[in-house]
Amino acid sequence: MAAGKFIVFEGIDGAGKTTQMKLLAVALEKRGTPVLCTREPGGTALGDRLRALLLDPACRDITRPAEAFLYAADRAQHVTEKILPALQRGETVLCDRFIYSTLAYQGGGRGLDREFLTKLNELATGGLAPDLVILLDLPAEEGMRRVAGNRSPDRLEGEKSDFFRQVRRGYLAQAESQPKLFKVIQAGAGVEAVHRSVLASLESLASVASVSKDKFFPG
Amino acid sequence: MAAGKFIVFEGIDGAGKTTQMKLLAVALEKRGTPVLCTREPGGTALGDRLRALLLDPACRDITRPAEAFLYAADRAQHVTEKILPALQRGETVLCDRFIYSTLAYQGGGRGLDREFLTKLNELATGGLAPDLVILLDLPAEEGMRRVAGNRSPDRLEGEKSDFFRQVRRGYLAQAESQPKLFKVIQAGAGVEAVHRSVLASLESLASVASVSKDKFFPG
Repeated sequence: MAAGKFIVFEGIDGAGKTTQMKLLAVALEKRGTPVLCTREPGGTALGDRLRALLLDPACRDITRPAEAFLYAADRAQHVTEKILPALQRGETVLCDRFIYSTLAYQGGGRGLDREFLTKLNELATGGLAPDLVILLDLPAEEGMRRVAGNRSPDRLEGEKSDFFRQVRRGYLAQAESQPKLFKVIQAGAGVEAVHRSVLASLESLASVASVSKDKFFPG
Repeated sequence: MAAGKFIVFEGIDGAGKTTQMKLLAVALEKRGTPVLCTREPGGTALGDRLRALLLDPACRDITRPAEAFLYAADRAQHVTEKILPALQRGETVLCDRFIYSTLAYQGGGRGLDREFLTKLNELATGGLAPDLVILLDLPAEEGMRRVAGNRSPDRLEGEKSDFFRQVRRGYLAQAESQPKLFKVIQAGAGVEAVHRSVLASLESLASVASVSKDKFFPG
């Protein structure tokens, strides 16, 4: 695979994004591809502080638009501080969640106006889009079971299974409307089987041109 | 003055916004007008946390777009949690800084693309605009002298006087392009004289219709 690709992992909590991203990073590094693993929210020092703030049960009074702007702040910092410099160095960037989470969680799950979120995402990324989005798809109940088995659920995870079903639908709708960008993988299979599907999904990328290295932000 | 007005105080640090806002609040309450005093950033619990984060010298690595999104998050929370409910209760809202600070500080002072900030402001306010903006105008050097006399300067205040000159120009350009919305008051005069000018600037508001009480945010 050519260097400088931008690959995003998406899916509901418990879908296995972190595990699969690590396995892919190891596989790519074995092939000699330099890799940067990062995540949203939390890819930067600012992001870590915002992540703590958003998951704090004391911050239940954050309104939905305000929450969307905090994710956008993290994203803007993340794109300018980490993602763009790595792509410009020729590294392949693996990112745990990106704008598709916003649309699925704040849009799909919470009914925030789609146009508002799309405009916000465009401002926050400065127009940067990934080469590939790997959607690890899983029924909401299965995701919740997996998460509960590991540790006590945090604020977002503790919300109802109806919410996660809506989030899943929000993801699948995005995948359906952008079939060239999204690769949907059934995450209910074993870790190794999912990993093989992830590797297979990269094959189509070999011939795709790298993302532009232009300046994405104003000012 | 009719109830339900939205009045914003703007100006560089040291211009006397806090003092003048308090004096106006007292004067309005004496007339029987219910008043809510608030400020940006920091009008909400979320805003206080974001304000601490933005003024923390350890957060020097926050990029300009990310900073703009944090102000937008505070603003969205502030509008939905405090300003709109107060206006809907028929209160007059006095607000220390609003979107004009973003344009003067991030736009005028920092060279961030004007169109980007205007779009961001529109998303953050859901389109809500004040009835009057009182710009307390002061030479940058005088503002810095006033601030330094009170306490040691924080991260934003500590930046160079060139920066504050640009901010002042950013404010004056906005006032010039929106002469019906802005009232520019020379803040170098004594506290009492400035207060009389503030009171005079409200006269024109008596005949203005109150802001719409429609829902400003999607979702």
